[in-house]
Amino acid sequence: MDNNLLSKKVGIIGGGQLGKMMINEAAKMGIYTMILDPSIECPAGYLANDKIVAGFDDTKSLIKLAQKVDVLTCEFEHISTKALKTLEEKGHKVYPGSQVLSIIQNKFHQKKELQNHNIPIGDFMKVEGVDSIKIAGQQYGYPIMLKSSLGGYDGKGNYLIRNLEDIEAAYEKLQGDKNPLYVEKFIPFEKEISVLCCRSIDGEIVVYPVAENVHKDSILFETCVPAAITEKNEKDALDIAKRVCAVFKSVGIICVEMFLTKTGEILVNEVAPRPHNSGHYTIEGCVTSQFENHIRAVIGLPLGSTALIRPTVMRNILGEEGYQGQPYVQGVKETLKIEGLKLHIYGKTETKYQRKMGHLTVTAPSLEEAKIKAKEAGALVRIISQ
Amino acid sequence: MDNNLLSKKVGIIGGGQLGKMMINEAAKMGIYTMILDPSIECPAGYLANDKIVAGFDDTKSLIKLAQKVDVLTCEFEHISTKALKTLEEKGHKVYPGSQVLSIIQNKFHQKKELQNHNIPIGDFMKVEGVDSIKIAGQQYGYPIMLKSSLGGYDGKGNYLIRNLEDIEAAYEKLQGDKNPLYVEKFIPFEKEISVLCCRSIDGEIVVYPVAENVHKDSILFETCVPAAITEKNEKDALDIAKRVCAVFKSVGIICVEMFLTKTGEILVNEVAPRPHNSGHYTIEGCVTSQFENHIRAVIGLPLGSTALIRPTVMRNILGEEGYQGQPYVQGVKETLKIEGLKLHIYGKTETKYQRKMGHLTVTAPSLEEAKIKAKEAGALVRIISQ
Repeated sequence: MDNNLLSKKVGIIGGGQLGKMMINEAAKMGIYTMILDPSIECPAGYLANDKIVAGFDDTKSLIKLAQKVDVLTCEFEHISTKALKTLEEKGHKVYPGSQVLSIIQNKFHQKKELQNHNIPIGDFMKVEGVDSIKIAGQQYGYPIMLKSSLGGYDGKGNYLIRNLEDIEAAYEKLQGDKNPLYVEKFIPFEKEISVLCCRSIDGEIVVYPVAENVHKDSILFETCVPAAITEKNEKDALDIAKRVCAVFKSVGIICVEMFLTKTGEILVNEVAPRPHNSGHYTIEGCVTSQFENHIRAVIGLPLGSTALIRPTVMRNILGEEGYQGQPYVQGVKETLKIEGLKLHIYGKTETKYQRKMGHLTVTAPSLEEAKIKAKEAGALVRIISQ
Repeated sequence: MDNNLLSKKVGIIGGGQLGKMMINEAAKMGIYTMILDPSIECPAGYLANDKIVAGFDDTKSLIKLAQKVDVLTCEFEHISTKALKTLEEKGHKVYPGSQVLSIIQNKFHQKKELQNHNIPIGDFMKVEGVDSIKIAGQQYGYPIMLKSSLGGYDGKGNYLIRNLEDIEAAYEKLQGDKNPLYVEKFIPFEKEISVLCCRSIDGEIVVYPVAENVHKDSILFETCVPAAITEKNEKDALDIAKRVCAVFKSVGIICVEMFLTKTGEILVNEVAPRPHNSGHYTIEGCVTSQFENHIRAVIGLPLGSTALIRPTVMRNILGEEGYQGQPYVQGVKETLKIEGLKLHIYGKTETKYQRKMGHLTVTAPSLEEAKIKAKEAGALVRIISQ
């Protein structure tokens, strides 16, 4: 006899598009959601059953949220683990937990953890002053990638060092005197791929199909599923992703971003313990979306099928250069004439250059057809300002 | 150059499950919604961007709603057309409009209208006192179906007259002295089918696949798509539905319920100018759900593909006999283990016998498999009270 699982209340830290898409799925099942976000106008704000307007590190407000729900989750990983630890100590359920987050938040620790569990990753070393970067350059050969250990996303906090002369500038740019940094051997990859896993409270793990990603200016541009890779590569990618999921023992969605190298190796690049941009395709593409499975996982429900229904292509819709302020979606009529296309607009109140304002998904009988239509749509729909 | 269609605000009269599912689709596209409903705790209440708590015939409140949005629609057809006419006279857009509603609300007028346009329907006649029912009995032969012209749904307001002796009781039960009634020849049908059409503001019409429906106690029990009918019957049903849609020239979804008779005829039974219970399968089953196309239609967007993705079975989840009060969904864990199953719980605050509390949808590679799984699920998930 289950204990009325659908009556469990879910608190979501962060009310951006990921929170919004979680709430959309929760609402279908009649699951109560409450969000905490600093902005009263955040995309998920109006959809949640209730909300708290407060900063992500405002422990008092996080406690208030925790007291009003049965379980807490988050839409992004850069939350004060100290605050989350406090909640856990008070007996609140937090997925992903403070321990997982503390490892994943620090990319250097994340890589160390993966290394300790023999997960294939590229060479890297901690940076203690500019000299250690020079050592990396000698050891790995240029170019090398200097990265902030903390807080970076969408390429922010990364600096490509092409040669010895770049080192000083890179170290200054990333403020190596203040911030923990590490350096990676540059990996000339063939493809960027990602695999979403979802882990239930009981430790059940489901894996989504391998997604092939294209980034532009370090921001995700397009995701194509199924990925055009060999069966061997696919098997390896799914296997590695599962192992990574088991390493962190996080509850809910975990996204494993990987490189397929020119030599046919698969190396883990980064891990995110939450629904991920490269998993948006699952809303229309898979039997159960990453958002539904994340919600199912954190409230203790069995996980849904991750099977791909039809070949799917997802493209981000970013704010255009030269436009800032209240967004205006242009070309909607033409875009929606494309068969099998779905338009997702997040409802952010302000657009700016390269801000993620929405995405479009095309499902079709063949990946080729989906790609062509997604390209066509991508040229039609534009976010400008009014 | 389109005029920022996604910024159009939609006012929805009625905040039940149909309103909720409309809002779910609108939210994905970033479309603003506002509802009007007498209950502050209605299923759609918390999801809408804004709401007005008022009765459906409260003209003042309807005007207030109309002033805050660009277009009005409704989730059910029994709204004061006088009030809607007032709004239209003030220049507000209302889809479906008061004229269509005034015809459809009155089932006798609805049938007349269909008859005037040579749409195949069963014999019927207006009731002026018990004697006219006796005439119908003689003319059609028993049994005959006595119906209230106004306000009936889910079998309410219907009375099956088996013989002459039933007439007095039937007339009294349906209060023929107060209410307009009509009488229909009883149609011994082979199958009940329905077809959803969607009509855009420009008059474009799209048609969904034929759905096969099973009712229990006059309430929809199960919908299976594709319907197990001959190609000829399918062609006829789609053709008739399109013609009905063209008769009423309503904007948005219109559901045409039909009988496939034992002699292979298709006769229209009833028409609903809104998303319909027999169209819930479209959320998972079709490329574009009835709710998304309804929203697209009323704000002037092109309509999406109605293609069926996979065979789909939908079952209603009704309140169980003997349980009343705060609902408790039992068997969720077991139900969600069924592959390809989606659970929709409307979030009504009170359950009662045969109240529509949710539905489940199963998509599968074959209809047979979907049927088996839906049956299994139907036996597992139960709405009881706490």
